[in-house]
Amino acid sequence: MDHAVTKPHEKLATHLAGKLSAVNDLIRARMVSRHAPRIPEVTAHLVEAGGKRLRPMLTLAAADLCGYGGEYDVHLAATVEFIHTATLLHDDVVDESAQRRGRPTANLLWDNKSSVLVGDYLFSRAFQLMVEPGSLRVLDILANASATIAEGEVLQLSAAQDLRTDESIYLQIVRGKTAALFSAATEVGGVISDAPEAQVKALYAYGDALGIAFQIVDDLLDYQGDSAATGKNIGDDFRECKLTLPVIKAVAAANEEERAFWSRVIERGKQGAGDLEHALTLLKAHDALEQTQQDALGWAAKAKSEIAKLPDHPVRQMLGDLADYVVTRVS
Amino acid sequence: MDHAVTKPHEKLATHLAGKLSAVNDLIRARMVSRHAPRIPEVTAHLVEAGGKRLRPMLTLAAADLCGYGGEYDVHLAATVEFIHTATLLHDDVVDESAQRRGRPTANLLWDNKSSVLVGDYLFSRAFQLMVEPGSLRVLDILANASATIAEGEVLQLSAAQDLRTDESIYLQIVRGKTAALFSAATEVGGVISDAPEAQVKALYAYGDALGIAFQIVDDLLDYQGDSAATGKNIGDDFRECKLTLPVIKAVAAANEEERAFWSRVIERGKQGAGDLEHALTLLKAHDALEQTQQDALGWAAKAKSEIAKLPDHPVRQMLGDLADYVVTRVS
Repeated sequence: MDHAVTKPHEKLATHLAGKLSAVNDLIRARMVSRHAPRIPEVTAHLVEAGGKRLRPMLTLAAADLCGYGGEYDVHLAATVEFIHTATLLHDDVVDESAQRRGRPTANLLWDNKSSVLVGDYLFSRAFQLMVEPGSLRVLDILANASATIAEGEVLQLSAAQDLRTDESIYLQIVRGKTAALFSAATEVGGVISDAPEAQVKALYAYGDALGIAFQIVDDLLDYQGDSAATGKNIGDDFRECKLTLPVIKAVAAANEEERAFWSRVIERGKQGAGDLEHALTLLKAHDALEQTQQDALGWAAKAKSEIAKLPDHPVRQMLGDLADYVVTRVS
Repeated sequence: MDHAVTKPHEKLATHLAGKLSAVNDLIRARMVSRHAPRIPEVTAHLVEAGGKRLRPMLTLAAADLCGYGGEYDVHLAATVEFIHTATLLHDDVVDESAQRRGRPTANLLWDNKSSVLVGDYLFSRAFQLMVEPGSLRVLDILANASATIAEGEVLQLSAAQDLRTDESIYLQIVRGKTAALFSAATEVGGVISDAPEAQVKALYAYGDALGIAFQIVDDLLDYQGDSAATGKNIGDDFRECKLTLPVIKAVAAANEEERAFWSRVIERGKQGAGDLEHALTLLKAHDALEQTQQDALGWAAKAKSEIAKLPDHPVRQMLGDLADYVVTRVS
């Protein structure tokens, strides 16, 4: 695919290569623990796994776009990646619990103890890093993002299996799971650059909308993706009885019999042969996948309109293209 | 017991009653989650359980002793209690894992998911609170304490069952488990009061020594306590194959046969009838309990000598008495 070489996150990675390499060096340096050699062992796999480094790139890109000339963009980008990695480790524990109740596979590499404690260690490392630039406003943004993330995760525990969960609750969960770190990543890039307030606000709104689009697409692909391309199996969320946007839309439009079906398979978790197929039929009957896709496209458009408020700059174009790219998987 | 009414932490609680009540109000206010009602449900039990509030009291006492006239001592005291509660929640997960491998009871009230995620929520709440006083130095202290706590917990995972763990590694673990939060609690009380540097240093050293004495006493009571008075069963650490100071001392003095015994019961976790009794015999034979007690008394004396560097003040006396009180349980 010729398309592959022009992916916007790859363009960003090329443009920001020097800074990204400094971020990687800083992450490696700060993972080292004199007292607890097991820590880099556990984190290396996650941090070195060749992820797209999307979140730290957002911080570097925002700072670059705002003409930042210092070095603390690297600290904050590493901070964001540490927070992301810590939440992944803790999610592992949460997912493993699910598995213990007879749910499908979770690819846990270490025991719960290590996941919890090394996650805490990464949070504390993130915390040390973010203090270094000496900006109370940056700390305030990251503290609020952390609270939104944690609150969203806890909310998901109770709301994900409750048919009363509506689109506004879904949005709160998505902000916690994904968008809060995206928007903090872009906002702090503007703040350390002393960008004008309107630009900082637009950077926040861009990250927020991009994160929401990103998560909606992820949830949509769970019902209509090509598993060879996405690496996800169709119906994972369904089997885990997780209420996501497509199902929320189908439940909102459900008749009594359909509601009873959703209640059985999601709320009570009683699933049998043919249930996933029936769910897909209901999703299609109520245009739920189509509407979900429209929502994702709407958030991507919102992200583009926000980033357009920043000054003209090659990075601005790449961030706009990134918003389009995030939704190409479903459009 | 007439002794009971004059316990130094009770004197402190009486002296600081107004501030402590403000701390409780703030904790309650910040536990509320608009989006996730389960959070206060989970935390209320821990926070409201009528703990001694020792750590927040240390912050309030240090600030009082340094003549602080503002209101941020309350924020920082609540911060310290939130961090403490969050680590308790995460310890629950770690301990529950232990139990799953056939170890004795852990009194877990909620599932792993809630413990991990609500712990994260409390960390993020602590983080928001500590930003509010607007002191980068306070943030630096608390960030470093968090890293020490997390590192100590991870270190304990590997070191607690390894006979090569010596007293210096034990000390690192104890600083992580206990002393880092004690010393941060007292230090930030001095810092927000703009106390002279020598006093801030002494407050740090007092908290550090007090925390170490506190933890050594706890580990000692596990082998020689009166379970009716302490609420701990003799030998819990032994049954959990946890290497603590008494055993480290006995291992250091062990002959070949004794070493083989410790290796079997601690490193390989193979314990049978009579093993605890034999362990106690070895601890006595090598004066390990006596030496551990001397260490605890030494740290308490160190705490007293540090707090003596602060100006004369009723609270200084109470903090000095507190150091004595911590070790009375074993002297």
